[in-house]
Amino acid sequence: MDVRYINPFIESTIHVLKTMGSTDARVGKPYLKKDQVAKGDVSGIIGLAGDVKGSISVSFKEECILNIVSNMFGEKMTELNDEVKDAAGEISNMISGQARQKLELMGRNLKASIPIVIMGKNHTISHITKDKIIALPFMTDKGEFTIEVSFEE
Amino acid sequence: MDVRYINPFIESTIHVLKTMGSTDARVGKPYLKKDQVAKGDVSGIIGLAGDVKGSISVSFKEECILNIVSNMFGEKMTELNDEVKDAAGEISNMISGQARQKLELMGRNLKASIPIVIMGKNHTISHITKDKIIALPFMTDKGEFTIEVSFEE
Repeated sequence: MDVRYINPFIESTIHVLKTMGSTDARVGKPYLKKDQVAKGDVSGIIGLAGDVKGSISVSFKEECILNIVSNMFGEKMTELNDEVKDAAGEISNMISGQARQKLELMGRNLKASIPIVIMGKNHTISHITKDKIIALPFMTDKGEFTIEVSFEE
Repeated sequence: MDVRYINPFIESTIHVLKTMGSTDARVGKPYLKKDQVAKGDVSGIIGLAGDVKGSISVSFKEECILNIVSNMFGEKMTELNDEVKDAAGEISNMISGQARQKLELMGRNLKASIPIVIMGKNHTISHITKDKIIALPFMTDKGEFTIEVSFEE
């Protein structure tokens, strides 16, 4: 995967978390995923198809997504309910949408699928591709989340 | 969603399970999903984009996928390991691929994303759409699995 395609995801993530969830997200060192699997308690998944095929996953630890959604709603969220699920889908969709706009400026046209949200303590996410998978670890003041991006070219 | 789009998924699922996993899958009554969430221990997810956007999830109970993969490999699988994960991705991809071929004959062109496989005991899957979500419950001699299909038109 062309590493130039990574920055649009980092920029979009920081922007979406800031504007929607009043949350400062700091990106750690991106790494190529090999055997490691991403784990999370709530994951938003969006498929990409068009010039190339790809997929995006955004996996939150419970504390992290509860805090972001509490900020969005201005109300303390304490459990992983339907509102949190829908908000996680919306955040993932916005990150994907803004990143796709930036990719389009780079000549890459990708359409997005309907988002899917997975809930379940400590589930693992695996992109099934022989191509590279880039993992972007993010930290917030209230826990971490990981974005994974795969493209086949 | 046009219900004519459902049969391609039923036919493809029965065919793929039979030919790849020597497993007879019987479909129960399809239902419109409202509040219910699909649950599974291993789920294959494929995004669709093209004329319309959509998504497909194939969620297996542990016993069910272990039995199918044991049949595929001719070797008893007893735990949810990487081989099972890859096989679940391949099965989901084949079901999606064959269904898309049939949909194409009906004038619906859809491209698929890179598949993602989720593992985690009793996780839930939610397609985030205001449109209808069709759930197709399948039974095998060794446990059940559920396919969910959503399209936005």
